[in-house]
Amino acid sequence: MPTTKAPSPRTKVRRLGGRGRYDQDTVHAILDAGLVGHMAFIQEDQPYAIPMLYARRERVLYLHGSRLSRLLKGAGGGIPVCFTVTLVDGLVLARSGFHHSVNYRSVVVLGRAGIVEGEAAKRLALDTIVDHIVPGRTTEARGPSTKELAATEVLALELDEASAKLRTGGPVDAPEDYALPVWAGEIPLHLTAGEPVPDARCAVPLPAYLERLVAARA
Amino acid sequence: MPTTKAPSPRTKVRRLGGRGRYDQDTVHAILDAGLVGHMAFIQEDQPYAIPMLYARRERVLYLHGSRLSRLLKGAGGGIPVCFTVTLVDGLVLARSGFHHSVNYRSVVVLGRAGIVEGEAAKRLALDTIVDHIVPGRTTEARGPSTKELAATEVLALELDEASAKLRTGGPVDAPEDYALPVWAGEIPLHLTAGEPVPDARCAVPLPAYLERLVAARA
Repeated sequence: MPTTKAPSPRTKVRRLGGRGRYDQDTVHAILDAGLVGHMAFIQEDQPYAIPMLYARRERVLYLHGSRLSRLLKGAGGGIPVCFTVTLVDGLVLARSGFHHSVNYRSVVVLGRAGIVEGEAAKRLALDTIVDHIVPGRTTEARGPSTKELAATEVLALELDEASAKLRTGGPVDAPEDYALPVWAGEIPLHLTAGEPVPDARCAVPLPAYLERLVAARA
Repeated sequence: MPTTKAPSPRTKVRRLGGRGRYDQDTVHAILDAGLVGHMAFIQEDQPYAIPMLYARRERVLYLHGSRLSRLLKGAGGGIPVCFTVTLVDGLVLARSGFHHSVNYRSVVVLGRAGIVEGEAAKRLALDTIVDHIVPGRTTEARGPSTKELAATEVLALELDEASAKLRTGGPVDAPEDYALPVWAGEIPLHLTAGEPVPDARCAVPLPAYLERLVAARA
């Protein structure tokens, strides 16, 4: 059941509209595949875009970021925000500079964010973020204390108004350019995980869920 | 000669201020290492963050994006914008959920963007972007025609007000948590290039500059 409004006048993809997607499955899949998004908000007539960690749970995005204190002055108070997640999948090299492109998947969410209140709700939101970044991590790491919860701010943004945009495949050149002696194609890009580096005081072997994470990002 | 204003009241890193950097070399190096940034701008009181390709030349960022038409209605006209580039370098796994983090490098640029006008200036800007994404590419690909230049909009944003923020290294746990039997350390992340995929009509062998790009992102 696609419950994302699809599309609103504000989220309708206007340029290269064939790349737009509005179904909930596509929007959720892109959000679930990303690690860091960018939150846009306005402060004193100046827009800012600030990187934040996030996770989706059902139709809510939980947001947590290192510049949260500046952000929270306004963003938690219900001002309009935009949260954008972009995954870069490859470089698209055409025979002309004009037709160069990038393969990507992106989601733009518009709305008003609220501060997550209450210990249980904050604990759920933070656990959701930790397990989004590192699936299985909350089974091992110590959960937040009451004091830590009080020191942490988390925002919630409902997925009511969202759109996805994506490009896949190789270059599309102008007909007359195919004769040019220019290499053309795609160079795939992936965010891959390197060998885990235990800290100096870690005596615990690498758990299975981290082996799986590294294998999934090989 | 660091000419970035360092820092302005608006770009001073407020939270975890020890992670802030304001010298031009750090700002430029992060911008030069990224591929896609996010442009924040305001339209009808709504902030947007839109992914864009970009490149730095001296103290100017050239910006080019697939949603440029919406953006250009305002952003090229000198309204305030923010352009943010974030590179994710690793997952930082502490023994407590609270101390989990991400290693990253980010730059925030504030200013007012202008539309690049004139064939020569547009050609330079576009070539700068192509060679930033794929160093050496403009030596091989066909450059833009007059008609293509006319159909392309590029923005310029001066690097007058910018700051960088970064985190490196392993987790820092609360003293009492080091005794916990929890794996702790860093999982490095890199944007790596896969095997280039020539398009169906490409009969040209992979050029040396693309072999170098793939090797540099191995």
